[in-house]
Amino acid sequence: MRERPHVVIVGGGFGGIAVARALANAPVRITLLDRRNHHLFQPLLYQVAMAGLSPADISAPIRAVLSAQANAEVLLAEVTQVDLAGRVVHTDAGPEPYDYLVLAAGARTSYFGHPEWEKHAPGLKDLEDAIDIRHRVLLAFEAAERARDPAERERLLTFVIIGGGPTGVELAGALAELSRTVLAQDFRNIDPASARVVLVDGGDRVLATFSPELSAAARAQLARLGVTVRGGRRVESVDADGVVVGGERIAAGTVLWAAGVAGSPLAQVLGVPLDRAGRVIIEPDCSLPGHREAFCIGDMALCLDAAGAPLPGVAPVAMQQGRYVAEVIRDAVAGMPLAPEPFRYRDKGTMATIGRSAAVAQVGRLELTGFAAWFAWLAIHILFLIDFRNRAVVIFNWVWSYFTYKRGARLITDERRR
Amino acid sequence: MRERPHVVIVGGGFGGIAVARALANAPVRITLLDRRNHHLFQPLLYQVAMAGLSPADISAPIRAVLSAQANAEVLLAEVTQVDLAGRVVHTDAGPEPYDYLVLAAGARTSYFGHPEWEKHAPGLKDLEDAIDIRHRVLLAFEAAERARDPAERERLLTFVIIGGGPTGVELAGALAELSRTVLAQDFRNIDPASARVVLVDGGDRVLATFSPELSAAARAQLARLGVTVRGGRRVESVDADGVVVGGERIAAGTVLWAAGVAGSPLAQVLGVPLDRAGRVIIEPDCSLPGHREAFCIGDMALCLDAAGAPLPGVAPVAMQQGRYVAEVIRDAVAGMPLAPEPFRYRDKGTMATIGRSAAVAQVGRLELTGFAAWFAWLAIHILFLIDFRNRAVVIFNWVWSYFTYKRGARLITDERRR
Repeated sequence: MRERPHVVIVGGGFGGIAVARALANAPVRITLLDRRNHHLFQPLLYQVAMAGLSPADISAPIRAVLSAQANAEVLLAEVTQVDLAGRVVHTDAGPEPYDYLVLAAGARTSYFGHPEWEKHAPGLKDLEDAIDIRHRVLLAFEAAERARDPAERERLLTFVIIGGGPTGVELAGALAELSRTVLAQDFRNIDPASARVVLVDGGDRVLATFSPELSAAARAQLARLGVTVRGGRRVESVDADGVVVGGERIAAGTVLWAAGVAGSPLAQVLGVPLDRAGRVIIEPDCSLPGHREAFCIGDMALCLDAAGAPLPGVAPVAMQQGRYVAEVIRDAVAGMPLAPEPFRYRDKGTMATIGRSAAVAQVGRLELTGFAAWFAWLAIHILFLIDFRNRAVVIFNWVWSYFTYKRGARLITDERRR
Repeated sequence: MRERPHVVIVGGGFGGIAVARALANAPVRITLLDRRNHHLFQPLLYQVAMAGLSPADISAPIRAVLSAQANAEVLLAEVTQVDLAGRVVHTDAGPEPYDYLVLAAGARTSYFGHPEWEKHAPGLKDLEDAIDIRHRVLLAFEAAERARDPAERERLLTFVIIGGGPTGVELAGALAELSRTVLAQDFRNIDPASARVVLVDGGDRVLATFSPELSAAARAQLARLGVTVRGGRRVESVDADGVVVGGERIAAGTVLWAAGVAGSPLAQVLGVPLDRAGRVIIEPDCSLPGHREAFCIGDMALCLDAAGAPLPGVAPVAMQQGRYVAEVIRDAVAGMPLAPEPFRYRDKGTMATIGRSAAVAQVGRLELTGFAAWFAWLAIHILFLIDFRNRAVVIFNWVWSYFTYKRGARLITDERRR
């Protein structure tokens, strides 16, 4: 019997996992590469950053996710080079020749040409980022408790979040709640509830991708939580003492960056055209120009909708692209003519959470705010987590695990990195 | 009204917390210092190391533990010097004058004069250690999956644990279970169940502090889990490729150290007599020689029982000492003559867990093994965790937390340290 076609998937995020799962019954041999051993449920990453959840609560070992899938193999390795002509992916664990390639390496934080800002204003892309942010936030309160100078104390209790998109809004809301509820009773010299949370955005409204009505609702809900929104302000500088936005210096002990993302560095080594954000400009069938056997999906790719506007960097896009690409590969393996329908994104709706019982959601023409939106958000995310058998929603997980042999904390986050 | 006496407690472990809680209604002002923000439930630390639990599952912010206690203040600070004559504790957050001092800084791993072994054989004392060990163990399986040379693969799948006390036995048992159950189905090129777990001990039996019968039972249960016990072997060297014990080289990808502990480095700066393990030799009332207002308890202290044998370094000893010292301080504050009964440890029993349904327990004359001992162990530990409102045992914790504003993951573990 001759060797089955080899499908190499780079990245164990929503896109990569979707491709692998959709090819479960296809006559192919799958190798999924990731430099991390875990799939990350990124929509809840801000909860880890704000100490609401543990890293293990929003992660699942990629091996566990695919362990029942006989035609899939998982390899912990970092891609060093991609030879599109020779159809080989080079990794620190050796070369992986492929018949079909799917690149789904995601995105990284972008500082718009100011890399020096990163150490003062961490972004939120992976678990290390989240743990780093958690430390900065918790340590700021500890330092304020110790501080003797009132001005310094006030600076330490000022938190600036740059970027009014979903991530910035989620971080600001969760941080305001953390200071006003969880920490409120635990200090003696400071009142955590007096912490200032400032959300800075270059545009004139938060959640600009939503309707003006929902943006206004989000802003009102943020105000209710005690978040100060500064719209229409450009960031001019970020340093150890705070930020300068729109000519105004804000003295802050903690600055968080939620303003920009760029395609994975892996995109740079491909030698294919990229957009300004370093994303791969893909064909209508998600393939690379001139390489119909190589695909790029998710946050790493620039994909335009029918109207010519770029698709947002959200999980549903990556998952739909993943299932679409799996279909294209399945047809190709079956020897069908390679002329697939172009990829079309079906928008099932978007939502952003602001805090407890506070969120906004847009489903077609339907717009939800407040508790209704938040409850919908909660329900959808719990279902997602259950799908990954995630410990966060498993009752009495650790006692239970003694008997079922399931474990949730099997992730390798590289604490040594920083 | 005149200032209440100031009680400074160094260390937020079982001993320090016990002192603070026992003084809740005393007319004193309490400052509890710790360089970490969290109390650690050390008996389950091996579960974090073996990916069974998350750090947050076995930790509680010290602030949260004492937040309801009006006369207690928590300070995140590292002690740099102790001036016993001047009654001042010097910290990186400034000086803390005291009327009464309780030192409860715990213990550290000791390599018997071979500090160079540490980087090859980490010990298990704090969360960073546990996360480091988890990474080494999980990465060993990943490296074995990638390895092409059979001998190297076998070496990577060999785990040596040095020290046959409770910690070594717990680590060996949990590691054997991890490889034979949790990981068993997740790899394609290796069979995790074929991993070799070798428990090395200098003595002729494991759990030497238990009765010979229980030691034998523990050894039998370890064998059933697939753990190889090598008794009567001294460790001659530890390096990156493995260990040499009793003249025999064992090629191993991972070596863990559970062989020795020593008193906290803080003991060195006190200028009081220490034993060979660097523990403070305390008076019968747990005070320092010549300083009846300064006490030392828990793993940091050498305390002899009526028969002149040193008390074990376990939580019950630290907690009973803590409550005893609180009593002595309360009497002194009340102006009662300082001639307290010497401290007496009431041994309510000791237990060690080996694996699921496998443990040994000694309660007075009663000896338990197997499921009975394990169930008793489980019940006691769950009760302890609930006492710290620990998330590990809270049903649907994170959903629930949206409404109750309790959070379990508020710890600061310093990933940057390594």
